[in-house]
Amino acid sequence: MTGSESAAPSPLPLGEMHPTRWGDPAAATTLPEPTRGLLELAFRLEDRAAVAEGVLPASTVPAAAAADLEAAVGADHVLRDDLSRRLRTRGKSTPDLIRARAGDLSDAPDVVVRPVDAAQVEAVLDVARRHHLAVVTFGGGTAVTGGLVAQREGYAGVVSLDLVRMKRLLAVDPVSMTATLEPGLRGPEAEALLAEHGLTLGHFPQSFEYATIGGFAATRSSGQSSAGYGRFDALVVGLDVVTPVGQLHLGTAPASAAGPDLRQLFLGSEGCFGVITAVTVRVRHLPSAAAYEGWGWASFAAGTTAVRALAQSGLLPTVVRLSDETETALNLARPDQIGAASTPGCLMVVGIEGDPEAVRTRRAAVTEVLTRLGGTSLGEEPGRAWEHGRYRAPYLRDALLDVGVLVETLETATFWSNVERLHAAVRAALEEHLPGPTMVLCHVSHVYETGASLYFTVATQEGATPLETWRAAKAAATDAMVEAGGTITHHHAVGTDHRPWLEREIGPVGVTVLRAVKQALDPDGLLNPGVLVP
Amino acid sequence: MTGSESAAPSPLPLGEMHPTRWGDPAAATTLPEPTRGLLELAFRLEDRAAVAEGVLPASTVPAAAAADLEAAVGADHVLRDDLSRRLRTRGKSTPDLIRARAGDLSDAPDVVVRPVDAAQVEAVLDVARRHHLAVVTFGGGTAVTGGLVAQREGYAGVVSLDLVRMKRLLAVDPVSMTATLEPGLRGPEAEALLAEHGLTLGHFPQSFEYATIGGFAATRSSGQSSAGYGRFDALVVGLDVVTPVGQLHLGTAPASAAGPDLRQLFLGSEGCFGVITAVTVRVRHLPSAAAYEGWGWASFAAGTTAVRALAQSGLLPTVVRLSDETETALNLARPDQIGAASTPGCLMVVGIEGDPEAVRTRRAAVTEVLTRLGGTSLGEEPGRAWEHGRYRAPYLRDALLDVGVLVETLETATFWSNVERLHAAVRAALEEHLPGPTMVLCHVSHVYETGASLYFTVATQEGATPLETWRAAKAAATDAMVEAGGTITHHHAVGTDHRPWLEREIGPVGVTVLRAVKQALDPDGLLNPGVLVP
Repeated sequence: MTGSESAAPSPLPLGEMHPTRWGDPAAATTLPEPTRGLLELAFRLEDRAAVAEGVLPASTVPAAAAADLEAAVGADHVLRDDLSRRLRTRGKSTPDLIRARAGDLSDAPDVVVRPVDAAQVEAVLDVARRHHLAVVTFGGGTAVTGGLVAQREGYAGVVSLDLVRMKRLLAVDPVSMTATLEPGLRGPEAEALLAEHGLTLGHFPQSFEYATIGGFAATRSSGQSSAGYGRFDALVVGLDVVTPVGQLHLGTAPASAAGPDLRQLFLGSEGCFGVITAVTVRVRHLPSAAAYEGWGWASFAAGTTAVRALAQSGLLPTVVRLSDETETALNLARPDQIGAASTPGCLMVVGIEGDPEAVRTRRAAVTEVLTRLGGTSLGEEPGRAWEHGRYRAPYLRDALLDVGVLVETLETATFWSNVERLHAAVRAALEEHLPGPTMVLCHVSHVYETGASLYFTVATQEGATPLETWRAAKAAATDAMVEAGGTITHHHAVGTDHRPWLEREIGPVGVTVLRAVKQALDPDGLLNPGVLVP
Repeated sequence: MTGSESAAPSPLPLGEMHPTRWGDPAAATTLPEPTRGLLELAFRLEDRAAVAEGVLPASTVPAAAAADLEAAVGADHVLRDDLSRRLRTRGKSTPDLIRARAGDLSDAPDVVVRPVDAAQVEAVLDVARRHHLAVVTFGGGTAVTGGLVAQREGYAGVVSLDLVRMKRLLAVDPVSMTATLEPGLRGPEAEALLAEHGLTLGHFPQSFEYATIGGFAATRSSGQSSAGYGRFDALVVGLDVVTPVGQLHLGTAPASAAGPDLRQLFLGSEGCFGVITAVTVRVRHLPSAAAYEGWGWASFAAGTTAVRALAQSGLLPTVVRLSDETETALNLARPDQIGAASTPGCLMVVGIEGDPEAVRTRRAAVTEVLTRLGGTSLGEEPGRAWEHGRYRAPYLRDALLDVGVLVETLETATFWSNVERLHAAVRAALEEHLPGPTMVLCHVSHVYETGASLYFTVATQEGATPLETWRAAKAAATDAMVEAGGTITHHHAVGTDHRPWLEREIGPVGVTVLRAVKQALDPDGLLNPGVLVP
């Protein structure tokens, strides 16, 4: 590590995320004074804003391989400069950020390659095969479970296959209400192209501003409007995939009985089975009206019962988010509100979008159910506040790391009858395994007829060995998820971080299936080695 | 072939289907006189009711293998008698029935084995491995695409693995609204067990009275109430599967990002990857009210637009079924009504079920949309008539075969913008390739936001070589489906009949995936050889 920096490298290419922080450097935040005061009650604040620049390992890609890559995509699109490699190093989990701040660039790719279409992707995979290069497909760089940290041992080098040039809206079918999108489109770019047709995808995860269509598919992303629009895998009706053994074009119909649904094998495949080069999704008309409202509940259990009632009566709003007692009290999800008088009990945010008549009707029906179950309307303000801050939490995380408070999230899902047990088990595991001052917050934000996700936010004293401390706590929490009957991840994918637990979820025969598919499609093991497949 | 028979073998075990006809012999029908008169206008009616008894091939299972099977499941549950084997020969497609009527029993299994639980299934698979026996999993016997016609060459014998003893409701979770069912439960048996808890699965395919839970899962069945309840694969949240290399327990949560969704690999796997031993499904409260109504449309195109409007505005009824002009005119789907004055244009049946208030609200909203789009309410009678006859069509098929009229169905699905093209292409292919008098009827009965299925019923003169004639027409129709962009099957599975077309749908790389999974899970190729996997 040499020297230190506290600002973005200059010049940062347009639209790129900061290499050691989330998002756009211009949008970075510092802690407001009231927040800082509140935090000082719980944590020992210290100045940890300094960042080590670090030294990139030498690029190991042989000259012949580099020349072949240049032949495949053009010399302008094979990048080996310091900044390009640095910007493709790992993702944006808190451990990723801690390593980046410490100048640890040991996982940097050797070369960044930018194909423009499926044919160039195929050509790159062929070069990788001939030179035995590992290939890490790169979209928005927002991974939080180590999906971009491929194994490098045994390979001549690591290629970051950046899909940034594949940003076309390939087709719109306004009758079938589908659209075919290239994988490199970031959330706002896809929405802008669809909006020209009066359409929306309706997929708004917290990473929306940076994450890409290909990444949504490869990780089974779920957005904040999943109650109304569905999780991303439910939006996909077609996939084009380039594998080392050839191309696939899946999705001849909305539904089929022509054998297993192979789309569902590539959704969640995290770049390990092939490179997704086009995604056909269900789209909806842009809503012309929206109503956001806060509701108060006496307890998390009461609020959970209410969310379940909505899900099981076919009355789900577009957005529904229920914070537990701790999250409600701290209101960490609403940085603008920290320190303000908190709502007693639990806060629920309900958002309904559509045409004005549909919003009015649905709102009346939802209000009837929530009132009957004991909810108290808190008016529009809490809903609007949440909507305003919905993509801001990762920026707040950087500001907290700057003062020595480690913030990270983890998530799971289970069936309704098991929600309370899972909530308690994960919370207890985190509190038990984090030695310093710790806060564990949770909300329900993705719901189904049969169950729901639980999304935890943890804040803890960073301390002297934050990576080791967090690794132990995360392991305990993931053990608790498995033991309490939850999935190891509802929408963040497996990556390298969850891989040790995957066999406990799908069993040894499930692992056999994944390995068989991997071996058949990627016989040389070039695609994201060390990720997903145990 | 020796002798002939025209009645059911006696005694037919309780609940078994007739070996050469559909369903319960007591429920068999003959053609009502008005129908017969109508048919005589189009077809040359002749007496073909005689049935050859046929001779079963000798059972080839070695004595040592039979002894091991008896050790696995008990001697009482290893059956080699004539009737048991005859009743497990093929399924109930029209070619299956024509072969059965001709006394062709060449595909009979050598032995019928009835395990009682997953452990016994595992034991049977172990015996099969040791003696190299092919294993055909048998549920309700309602297969219509040759899924029960396994290859016998290269095996020491063929075992029909009959799941008839696995009929328990294993668990009900009224909070999560899920139920775990054993695979041998027939539709009405599953509904009766769930009804004790006030619940319903809501899965009512035409084969409902005989088809089983395991078969629904293995073939990706879709029921007549799919608009309201979803197709079967959408109802499944968990699966237990016994494979030759071990057991799988899939479905820790309603949704997950822990890699590919392996449930979707076993749904539609047709007994080729393993034996499904338990299915956890989403259930609903039994509806307390229902409203069925007929609607008239000027054309199939106008009716299709209306169905699409319902699907895309979130207003789908529980049942929606739109007949094209020919089906409406002939009204073949309503045997009780054949010959009655037919509705002009196209008939749509709309059924709405739920609690009274929900039915009232939904019906008002549906009526508003259908009226606005030009539909004419025909009152409740056409809807009730359809509901009354919903499981009767296969009985009518037998009565038609008795007079020399071959009736068969085939089905596909596509995106909305392609429905008209696909409808015309399949219809033209059938009319072109059937030499005798022919009627081609079609309806839309499974709809999605992005598209719909097309279900064709074909009636043609049986003639001298019905199997060859139908095979050529079916091939032409399936070619037309592929060429016109439809799937080769929306809800009847691949079996042996559609297998030659599967590669055209999923591509060579898709086939590579299926073969890799098959090889990994069933390395000796014992499970339903020759079915599904190209």
